[in-house]
Amino acid sequence: MNKLNLGLIGGGFAGQVHSIAFRMMKGFFGQKVKNVSLKVLVTQNESKGRKLAEKFGIDEWMGDWRKLMSKDNIHAVIIATPNYKHKDMVLEAVGKGKHVLCEKPFALNAQDAKEMYDAAENAGLKHGVNFNYRKTPAILLIKKWIDEGRLGKIFTFRSSYLQDWGTDKDGLLNWRFQKKYAGAGSLGDLGAHIIDMARFLVGEFSDIAGIASTRINKRPVGALDFGVSAEKNDKIMGDVDVDDICDVLFTFKNGAQGSLSSSRLAKGRKNHFEFEIYGTGGSIYFDWERRNEVLLYSQEKPNDQSGFSKVIVGATDHPYSDALWAIPGLGIGFAEPFSIQLFEFIDAIYNDKDFSPSFYDGWKNNQVLDAINVSIKERRFIAVL
Amino acid sequence: MNKLNLGLIGGGFAGQVHSIAFRMMKGFFGQKVKNVSLKVLVTQNESKGRKLAEKFGIDEWMGDWRKLMSKDNIHAVIIATPNYKHKDMVLEAVGKGKHVLCEKPFALNAQDAKEMYDAAENAGLKHGVNFNYRKTPAILLIKKWIDEGRLGKIFTFRSSYLQDWGTDKDGLLNWRFQKKYAGAGSLGDLGAHIIDMARFLVGEFSDIAGIASTRINKRPVGALDFGVSAEKNDKIMGDVDVDDICDVLFTFKNGAQGSLSSSRLAKGRKNHFEFEIYGTGGSIYFDWERRNEVLLYSQEKPNDQSGFSKVIVGATDHPYSDALWAIPGLGIGFAEPFSIQLFEFIDAIYNDKDFSPSFYDGWKNNQVLDAINVSIKERRFIAVL
Amino acid sequence: MNKLNLGLIGGGFAGQVHSIAFRMMKGFFGQKVKNVSLKVLVTQNESKGRKLAEKFGIDEWMGDWRKLMSKDNIHAVIIATPNYKHKDMVLEAVGKGKHVLCEKPFALNAQDAKEMYDAAENAGLKHGVNFNYRKTPAILLIKKWIDEGRLGKIFTFRSSYLQDWGTDKDGLLNWRFQKKYAGAGSLGDLGAHIIDMARFLVGEFSDIAGIASTRINKRPVGALDFGVSAEKNDKIMGDVDVDDICDVLFTFKNGAQGSLSSSRLAKGRKNHFEFEIYGTGGSIYFDWERRNEVLLYSQEKPNDQSGFSKVIVGATDHPYSDALWAIPGLGIGFAEPFSIQLFEFIDAIYNDKDFSPSFYDGWKNNQVLDAINVSIKERRFIAVL
Amino acid sequence: MNKLNLGLIGGGFAGQVHSIAFRMMKGFFGQKVKNVSLKVLVTQNESKGRKLAEKFGIDEWMGDWRKLMSKDNIHAVIIATPNYKHKDMVLEAVGKGKHVLCEKPFALNAQDAKEMYDAAENAGLKHGVNFNYRKTPAILLIKKWIDEGRLGKIFTFRSSYLQDWGTDKDGLLNWRFQKKYAGAGSLGDLGAHIIDMARFLVGEFSDIAGIASTRINKRPVGALDFGVSAEKNDKIMGDVDVDDICDVLFTFKNGAQGSLSSSRLAKGRKNHFEFEIYGTGGSIYFDWERRNEVLLYSQEKPNDQSGFSKVIVGATDHPYSDALWAIPGLGIGFAEPFSIQLFEFIDAIYNDKDFSPSFYDGWKNNQVLDAINVSIKERRFIAVL
Repeated sequence: MNKLNLGLIGGGFAGQVHSIAFRMMKGFFGQKVKNVSLKVLVTQNESKGRKLAEKFGIDEWMGDWRKLMSKDNIHAVIIATPNYKHKDMVLEAVGKGKHVLCEKPFALNAQDAKEMYDAAENAGLKHGVNFNYRKTPAILLIKKWIDEGRLGKIFTFRSSYLQDWGTDKDGLLNWRFQKKYAGAGSLGDLGAHIIDMARFLVGEFSDIAGIASTRINKRPVGALDFGVSAEKNDKIMGDVDVDDICDVLFTFKNGAQGSLSSSRLAKGRKNHFEFEIYGTGGSIYFDWERRNEVLLYSQEKPNDQSGFSKVIVGATDHPYSDALWAIPGLGIGFAEPFSIQLFEFIDAIYNDKDFSPSFYDGWKNNQVLDAINVSIKERRFIAVL
Repeated sequence: MNKLNLGLIGGGFAGQVHSIAFRMMKGFFGQKVKNVSLKVLVTQNESKGRKLAEKFGIDEWMGDWRKLMSKDNIHAVIIATPNYKHKDMVLEAVGKGKHVLCEKPFALNAQDAKEMYDAAENAGLKHGVNFNYRKTPAILLIKKWIDEGRLGKIFTFRSSYLQDWGTDKDGLLNWRFQKKYAGAGSLGDLGAHIIDMARFLVGEFSDIAGIASTRINKRPVGALDFGVSAEKNDKIMGDVDVDDICDVLFTFKNGAQGSLSSSRLAKGRKNHFEFEIYGTGGSIYFDWERRNEVLLYSQEKPNDQSGFSKVIVGATDHPYSDALWAIPGLGIGFAEPFSIQLFEFIDAIYNDKDFSPSFYDGWKNNQVLDAINVSIKERRFIAVL
Repeated sequence: MNKLNLGLIGGGFAGQVHSIAFRMMKGFFGQKVKNVSLKVLVTQNESKGRKLAEKFGIDEWMGDWRKLMSKDNIHAVIIATPNYKHKDMVLEAVGKGKHVLCEKPFALNAQDAKEMYDAAENAGLKHGVNFNYRKTPAILLIKKWIDEGRLGKIFTFRSSYLQDWGTDKDGLLNWRFQKKYAGAGSLGDLGAHIIDMARFLVGEFSDIAGIASTRINKRPVGALDFGVSAEKNDKIMGDVDVDDICDVLFTFKNGAQGSLSSSRLAKGRKNHFEFEIYGTGGSIYFDWERRNEVLLYSQEKPNDQSGFSKVIVGATDHPYSDALWAIPGLGIGFAEPFSIQLFEFIDAIYNDKDFSPSFYDGWKNNQVLDAINVSIKERRFIAVL
Repeated sequence: MNKLNLGLIGGGFAGQVHSIAFRMMKGFFGQKVKNVSLKVLVTQNESKGRKLAEKFGIDEWMGDWRKLMSKDNIHAVIIATPNYKHKDMVLEAVGKGKHVLCEKPFALNAQDAKEMYDAAENAGLKHGVNFNYRKTPAILLIKKWIDEGRLGKIFTFRSSYLQDWGTDKDGLLNWRFQKKYAGAGSLGDLGAHIIDMARFLVGEFSDIAGIASTRINKRPVGALDFGVSAEKNDKIMGDVDVDDICDVLFTFKNGAQGSLSSSRLAKGRKNHFEFEIYGTGGSIYFDWERRNEVLLYSQEKPNDQSGFSKVIVGATDHPYSDALWAIPGLGIGFAEPFSIQLFEFIDAIYNDKDFSPSFYDGWKNNQVLDAINVSIKERRFIAVL
């Protein structure tokens, strides 16, 4: 096993999560990742760069991401920056022969996404998009059950991802509120996770109808980068041109149907990502805020004990229970799925395996987002390409 | 207070519920309904008529509903029959000057519904549709909070009503599976309740997009009337021409938006009628299977104790807590809301008050159902009239 | 089936529940109880007697319970009065050859209870104590599972019954706060239900250790009878001489062990009666505030789907699902278990069956209460006789 | 800030947790712990030592813990070994001037514990016991609320800690089943955590009554050390001489009362550590399996919105929300509380602060355990010293 060096671009919240996940990965997977290092941090803020690098456990830091790309001893990069920077970074990284793990939403639109996907694929590199929720052990367990046919043929997928941080009217007009930087609002930030989950567990989307609204139309101008402090200017207000709330109806190519709701204005909801799936053989309910539990109904023929089972994740025969906390009920937090993802990405590089979610998934995700945006604008059903 | 005599049409499940609700009403409301009697039961099945009447606590029974309408000592009728019989019965009753409380869904289509509404209204009679869930004390409490502005301006309503009795492939082709008798499938049976709840709590519908599917297309021919036994003929299969599953996206005239899902094929779900509402001032979650609890978030400014409050219904200052079980947490069952409804209907007659949900609500409900059915068929957004 | 006439003593809350339960029973059980009548109400308050009787659906009322006992056309009586009146009433009723269904807690102490039990038994009459929670369909389902061995050998029973109405310091010194009338405080009111549940589901008690405390020692003098209004005198304060809170540790004769907690001062708890049972074969959790659900774990060998199943009560093969609401998830309220109990009591009379919980159960319950009271006082383990 | 080097004794599960927690701590607390290193791992198993050290991110390893104690460049040690080894290790470490963080249960009995506490205290060193659950952000939030008086005067604490790994009859007779190694069974393993939580949140114990039972009395002889593989010998069975199940009743010196239950045989329960607290001002319910939620009732005067609030932990004004995941609802797993604990321990060393839970807490915990064991044996109430 050769030395594998990673570079991390982004000193904000996502960057911190990746750095902690990297450290956890070392503790969970031991020998399997012993030659992997997180070598360089790229972050714009000069004054904080060194301290952040120390905090993240990274020896070297720099302010220019293009410089990172030109370093020969960096084999792969993690891009943890806002949406609008992804394309340039990905194309440059791939051009320099580096494997790439990129934050979501992948690109600003499907066309860009396709270009990024083609570039990475043609270069023969490993590429991944950070749809981190996929790698939750509970989700991997659900995926296993579905693949084994325990839900039979799926016909309904219904999901919501609701937060309430947008209800603060004094919240700054950060990049997440601007189309040119974020592509979409709650739909891109939260809905993209739902779309990925649906594609992972159910299949490809077919037709779509969406409705969206922006409830807080102006916000005080402030920072562009999440996690980077900026002077708030309460007197200068800027326009919010992305959705606060979005509801979407859809069918899948396999005939299933469903709906999704995303919102930044759902008072009292913090990170409420829930979904339910119904099939001929059974049903599932999952809420990420209770990510160590899955509710499963799978009785072929009902009897007097039939009901949704609350499965506590982490049992011996559950995914990654050997690597992570070996006792069910101890429970994982936000970083563990990132650790699993990073491990799988590294494993894919070392052992030339397929990694998913890949840029392909990023592209398909952007296609669905694009279709929804058209449907919202034109108020009609749109077929996903 | 003069003597008020009621007639009940329907000896099936709904009929039984109304008869028990009538008895409970007597016990809950005492003097206020002391001169009210449930006098006559109409049910087709001759052999069971007498026994059913005894069970329901009704002195007289008959097989012909038209005969009931011509009885002068009957002042009001409860129509608890399948959908397709409502129009004739309502028009006849109204023609004979009788107040009418009718089961839902009200009519087979909005045109019929309008005719029925106009007839009752023009005759100056009290009329109601049995959207029983409205009368759940928890719902009346939610309505009170909304009217008082505790949720602020509402912008999202999201609901599902899921059951699984349809998953039994050997289940008979009863009236609920046939368009000519039921009008719609899960949408008419379950979705109609959601639509009424949305109209009650949020407002009138504006635009709609729907998707539906029928998963079990043929069923053994059997009984038409629910609750009436029939010879099942496994060899003769008939077509199911209504939806098993329906998902709908919508906007309200006041600008709110949302979605609904109805299903008869949601394995493990028994009577899972849930909804969530989000507004500028707060949020609500309610699940009818836990009908004595409301989850409410209503903090103006969050503090370190903020969260959804589980309000146990039945406290002194909750609706009807004085009439029903006076101790919160004792809890109500399926019949109590019917009792409240019946009381309010009788109260409206005695004291010439408005009653709701009225035939107007039945008509508006049918309009929404019609719009959804068109949207499903033509796969486009439809404006509700 | 001969005519069977019942008399009801008590016009308070319990009396109202019994009267509504009687009416529901008629609707649920039909022909089986068609010759049963609730004929006479006894209640002290002259001014309200007639109105209460009308509300309760009872033709005749009187103020003197001894007069009821001497009526030949009354075959059975329901005693729904405070604890301290039970003994005289029971002995008189039994002396007059009447079957008796008596409210809980049965007697003021085990000695009285034994006398009452012997009297009824020697007279060859049917006798029952209103431990209504036993008759909840969910509890009957749990009992069935235990009898079928699905939990294996039980080794733990842990329960609490918590309310918060006692936290109001201005609450009157009613009979429930006085030892001479109530026998015990939260222990007698709530703990007695836990004790009955434990005896029903697990077995007879062996050794006991208890701790209790009274937190609000004085209350304004007021009504003796619950449900009867009285002038509150805020200036005259009386002593509370029963427990507000009680915790008990115990073993069963079959070797199982456990604990119970009762309280009137558990802020936020309304009628929170919960228990959990663990055995060699499985586990159960039940909360009466969610009385239509049972959580059951019964996997012999765990697999990747193992977990507590939320069984929605009311399925075809669940107890009394044919008589009550025939669709699981519709759900029962506070009165339905009273209806079942009344039906079983009447069925026992008509068909000479054993009825339980009988006075024997009342006596055994009082024995446990007595042992706990001694343990609390002497702070030592006490063997239940 | 000087260099601070730690040694870790124990290569089993607890050792792994501490090593991951150390890495997370670096990522969460950054500059504040930048000069701290985890330098040496001590573990018995020679063949695995090097690999474990690599996995744990530790440069050096050794097999002899006494050797570690004699190293001058080690300033503090983490003892993550079975119970029976703690005393020797602690006394040696303290004798060599090293600060000590020791696993729980602290000692085999209160006498040993006192000796260990005195030694550390007299040497002027920082000392801590790993009651990790205390450091859960939710628990720190609850503690803050209690200290601020939001629950008023507490009068009830009721808790259970239930697992089911003991139900496997083929499970080896590891050290946790033997008194000489573990001191107690479920009581020492799980009950000790409850006792610590009660002392932390409510106060010191006063009187105690306990009941315990051992249900699986013989197990196949196997490994002594948890986490170290051993040849299982199914033919040689050894005696289990500690409790499987334990129930305890108690009072606190401040007048509160309560109970605890611990079990290894609670089928379906994985790491079910729950407690509820009732006071004059409010109530709390907490379940560690849902460690990112606290149920709180704190209304001074009830209104129509009163109920238990589900507080999602991680809001801006919650403990450590700035250091850990900054968005409520992202949620923590098993290791985060260990990270906080380690940080506080290091902070105590650097800044000469008090650390708790200290050896004093370990000693008081052992006193309670001893009292329970006497009560179980002699079946009488015992006063805790």
